[in-house]
Amino acid sequence: MAKISLTFPDQSQHEFDAGVTTLAVAKSIASSLAKKAVAGNLNGTLVDLDQPLNQDGDLQIITNADPEGVLVLRDTAAFVLGAALKQLHPDLHFGEHKADDDGFYLDTDRADGQVAVSELPDIKKAMQKIISANQPVERKVVDKTDLLKEFADDPYQTLLLNAMDAVQVHVYQLGDYTSFGSRALLKSLAPLKHLELLSVAGAYWQGKSSNPMLQRIYGTAFFKADELAADLKRRAEIKERDHRTIGRDLDIFFVDPEVGAGLPYWMPNGATIRRVIERYIIDKEVADGYEHVYTPVLANLNLYKTSGHWAHYREDMFPPMDMGDGEFLELRPMNCPSHIQIYNHHNRSYRELPVRIAELGMMHRYEKSGALSGLQRVREMTLNDGHTFLAPEQIQSEFKRVLRLMMDVYDDFNITDYTFRLSYRDPANTEKYFDDDEMWNKSQAMLKGAMDDLGLDYYEAEGEAAFYGPKLDVQTKTALGNDETMSTIQLDFMMPEKFQLTYVGADGKDHRPVMMHRGIVGTMERFIAYLMEIYKGAFPTWLAPVQVEIIPVNLDLHTEYAQQLQKQLASQGIRVKVDLRNEKMGYKIREAQTQKVPYTLVVGDEELRDQTVSVRRYGEKDANDEAIKLFTDMILDDIHNYSRTGSEKVNSNVETKLDK
Amino acid sequence: MAKISLTFPDQSQHEFDAGVTTLAVAKSIASSLAKKAVAGNLNGTLVDLDQPLNQDGDLQIITNADPEGVLVLRDTAAFVLGAALKQLHPDLHFGEHKADDDGFYLDTDRADGQVAVSELPDIKKAMQKIISANQPVERKVVDKTDLLKEFADDPYQTLLLNAMDAVQVHVYQLGDYTSFGSRALLKSLAPLKHLELLSVAGAYWQGKSSNPMLQRIYGTAFFKADELAADLKRRAEIKERDHRTIGRDLDIFFVDPEVGAGLPYWMPNGATIRRVIERYIIDKEVADGYEHVYTPVLANLNLYKTSGHWAHYREDMFPPMDMGDGEFLELRPMNCPSHIQIYNHHNRSYRELPVRIAELGMMHRYEKSGALSGLQRVREMTLNDGHTFLAPEQIQSEFKRVLRLMMDVYDDFNITDYTFRLSYRDPANTEKYFDDDEMWNKSQAMLKGAMDDLGLDYYEAEGEAAFYGPKLDVQTKTALGNDETMSTIQLDFMMPEKFQLTYVGADGKDHRPVMMHRGIVGTMERFIAYLMEIYKGAFPTWLAPVQVEIIPVNLDLHTEYAQQLQKQLASQGIRVKVDLRNEKMGYKIREAQTQKVPYTLVVGDEELRDQTVSVRRYGEKDANDEAIKLFTDMILDDIHNYSRTGSEKVNSNVETKLDK
Repeated sequence: MAKISLTFPDQSQHEFDAGVTTLAVAKSIASSLAKKAVAGNLNGTLVDLDQPLNQDGDLQIITNADPEGVLVLRDTAAFVLGAALKQLHPDLHFGEHKADDDGFYLDTDRADGQVAVSELPDIKKAMQKIISANQPVERKVVDKTDLLKEFADDPYQTLLLNAMDAVQVHVYQLGDYTSFGSRALLKSLAPLKHLELLSVAGAYWQGKSSNPMLQRIYGTAFFKADELAADLKRRAEIKERDHRTIGRDLDIFFVDPEVGAGLPYWMPNGATIRRVIERYIIDKEVADGYEHVYTPVLANLNLYKTSGHWAHYREDMFPPMDMGDGEFLELRPMNCPSHIQIYNHHNRSYRELPVRIAELGMMHRYEKSGALSGLQRVREMTLNDGHTFLAPEQIQSEFKRVLRLMMDVYDDFNITDYTFRLSYRDPANTEKYFDDDEMWNKSQAMLKGAMDDLGLDYYEAEGEAAFYGPKLDVQTKTALGNDETMSTIQLDFMMPEKFQLTYVGADGKDHRPVMMHRGIVGTMERFIAYLMEIYKGAFPTWLAPVQVEIIPVNLDLHTEYAQQLQKQLASQGIRVKVDLRNEKMGYKIREAQTQKVPYTLVVGDEELRDQTVSVRRYGEKDANDEAIKLFTDMILDDIHNYSRTGSEKVNSNVETKLDK
Repeated sequence: MAKISLTFPDQSQHEFDAGVTTLAVAKSIASSLAKKAVAGNLNGTLVDLDQPLNQDGDLQIITNADPEGVLVLRDTAAFVLGAALKQLHPDLHFGEHKADDDGFYLDTDRADGQVAVSELPDIKKAMQKIISANQPVERKVVDKTDLLKEFADDPYQTLLLNAMDAVQVHVYQLGDYTSFGSRALLKSLAPLKHLELLSVAGAYWQGKSSNPMLQRIYGTAFFKADELAADLKRRAEIKERDHRTIGRDLDIFFVDPEVGAGLPYWMPNGATIRRVIERYIIDKEVADGYEHVYTPVLANLNLYKTSGHWAHYREDMFPPMDMGDGEFLELRPMNCPSHIQIYNHHNRSYRELPVRIAELGMMHRYEKSGALSGLQRVREMTLNDGHTFLAPEQIQSEFKRVLRLMMDVYDDFNITDYTFRLSYRDPANTEKYFDDDEMWNKSQAMLKGAMDDLGLDYYEAEGEAAFYGPKLDVQTKTALGNDETMSTIQLDFMMPEKFQLTYVGADGKDHRPVMMHRGIVGTMERFIAYLMEIYKGAFPTWLAPVQVEIIPVNLDLHTEYAQQLQKQLASQGIRVKVDLRNEKMGYKIREAQTQKVPYTLVVGDEELRDQTVSVRRYGEKDANDEAIKLFTDMILDDIHNYSRTGSEKVNSNVETKLDK
């Protein structure tokens, strides 16, 4: 009998009869290994456990403890899903299927309608029936021409087959269901106990929006019950915190790819939150010595040629508009050149420095459509931007000042989980950076000194500075655990050179200022997406689109009192709604909770008589009767202290260090 | 002797010897006419008084009472200006010259520097000397080739001559100065008594920015002293109210054509005014039931194809950006399609109507560069825009509501000089309009009825409605007397059709809403330009960029008190500056007045001792000592009442009629 030589991961070589299966090899090592084995990996290609091996090579036994084993489990789940659907809807067409780290999916196209989420339980039942029956899945190699005949009625399978080079195709079969394209499937369906069908969503055939839309059914599967439970919990958490879900449920924003991908529309609720934040940050900055401006989003392309953006950042910029006569207008990708125009509009003296220019500056960046996501990654954004022009010796004090403002703002939003990261130039490659050794050394020392003076912890990242200067990043974690840069303070020695900026010094001579770019809350879009996630949509009172919802117990008897209350509260600047719909009180209260309104006031006979309100705070079960004046004072206090319905105290981890 | 036949304006024909002059003809009619005559007009061409007439034709005697006579006077003034400059700077080159209704100008180019405004008095003196001497201006016809030799050193005159078809050129000469291109000049310089040189400004050769820049000297001249005086007064008034001058002097905005024509930069002072107005109008609208939103300035071009803007408004739109894959993005020229997206994002019920969507919406319109002017005509603008979606039967009540809001806002800005203009369709050409007779008849009656109910005067303009619905315009006069449409309420039956808008009626069926476009204060750019003109830059306290300027009498002794005051006032939201420069007190007070700061507070020993402030209101000479508390109350009162330093009472001409 012919022999083959197999090399195991420990590099040991073993001879087997040609035609041996991976399962037999596993058994030859240990029966416990054979029990856990789900597939083999021969020379980098997955093979079924019972597939005969006829060539020499590296063989790895894939077990249920390997990530690849989980993929085999999920590929098998996708196959069983197809088989179950074929039983339920014999005329169904199938698109592509895939298993990955996140689960599996199968695309389908039903002539008589679409697969609804409500059908998923029945589909799952049909899958479980197939799994219990545990009939063997047949693995065959067939001629493509025969397969094309079998799939003559299925346009997508036909397209997929025609796109294949092979003459023969490796297929899996169970009853009437035939499928190809899986890497390897389980020998027995028994381990497929812990699976879940998750959702249904439209998916364009082969991802192109000009193609027909199929229905993609998502699911996941694990070898162990607790792993599935943990994954479903994680998914629920993600869904609960996903700003796109919250944005839809609380009617905060929407994006319509037909009208413009990455171009969000802010609905009234979202616009209210954004407006409150915009006013807050402007007032805060003006009080801190910033001069707020408005500058145009369009400028002559030459401005971005001078700044260097056109040379180094072009791929993120929108195409220039040809206005004729050699004039090209460009949507700005950054606000710095605009603020340089403001600085340069006057001759500046050292007495004026630092000159702090700030703006809620709208910018446009052409992000790839695959990168776009809700408000988090967009193509039109408004940045809480600021540029300070200062003398080199002012770097440290100005840096401290920005840090104080930043942490003061974080405090107000109750953002406490952040870390600092200082980026320096690479001391071994100083020629890669803006050529001014003294400036680099001094300014890096000043940034470090400021952090130390303020008693802040920070990570020092050598070699991570940009060409034009050192910087500080403030890193936060999103609710989903992703790192995100919330704020940056970036020194810039280069831009003042490019635009030949000057100020007249005490010596009467022209000097070159340094620029400090800084963002406190970043773009309105990303910041509010972040807030939605950390607050789970339950905005603190000062930010909530509706701060108080008043529900009259009886529309005939208590509407007048409710409206009088509304007027009284609104006159103090509080955002109040009265729910006058013809619905049950319990329904209205539940809806106010769903909408995460901080305060729900129910008013009936007793409240009318005593001139009180029955106050229910968001997230609390009980309601308390309170005098109108007391309630008003409480909510105004809430608003002025940026706190959440009086229950959470804002506390900063750096407060004492930052006392000015 | 040969004869010619001349026809006078009264159609009478008269025979004269060939070679007769206009002056001789005038004398033959009346010696008083001859005295007033300044030139002739033979067959539509101006001729000098002493120019021999050798052909038949229509002759009009131009006198000093004719507008054309004034042009001859000014052409002569421009000639004398040239002669005077030639005396002062023999090497000067000349560009073009012109006389028109507004005065005259002459372009010059000096090798050794530029003509400065400070030189104008000397130049005028030289002109007056020439006029007193009253030497005859010689009129000659010379060969172009000879003239080209004479002007060999002057590049501009050479270019002008080469562009001429003629072989012979008609020139005027006085001493060394030769000029061509004037239509006719005065026979005697004696009437040139009432002239003034006004200004000097750069002007590109032949108006093209790629050509060298010459110096253009502007002047004017009249036959009578009182006419000149009135004109100079008018010019001073225009200058004082010109928002471009105010914008520069008060550092409100600037436009740099190199970076982008029609794209203003708002300096901190202007940005403060704009921000206060934006917050004011948003708060006012939200209190009136509007839902404010933010929508993107970019959208797929298809949106504007659906709306009809691309078909009918394309020439005012910026060029679409080709994003590849057949996607074209367009900067929006109007906000209506964006607000339709907001309306359409939900199914709407009759219970929700009217749905009022508002935004400070940025738009881009490609105005011709010749039409651009400061903030008045720009290419990027932010409109105080609103769109109400309503049931047809709600037109009248909603129209009244918008009118009330509008007049309430005018009141707050102390705008009292406005008129109403209702535009209907042309009853004789109803087929030219959106096809719904009943809708037109009812809605026009509703608008008219509303105006009558409110007791407002209005002009009815039949045939001036747009295709898609009737409208109301509110017309104001600018400070310079120009008509301007401040606000519009426009009904629109068509757009809801184009976008297939619906709401579910009480009958459970789909109905088509009507749209109402409305602007209250128009664009931020034009509104603030208008305010600068009517206020002459002296903004009322609530809008003033700096509301209070504090001047310590002695920097050593009174700075601390000044800063303590500043803190106290700023904590109440008042915008305060302390002038700590090393300048004399009188200088600082004068500068605060120049900057039109509403309140200047001087603090010295007495004020420190008594804890008072010496208050000087803008435009008043005297200062009063007042207790801090009293002053604070007064200025806060000012701000809350939108009044000007307490001295002007706001009163509305329609107040009683509008009581709700």
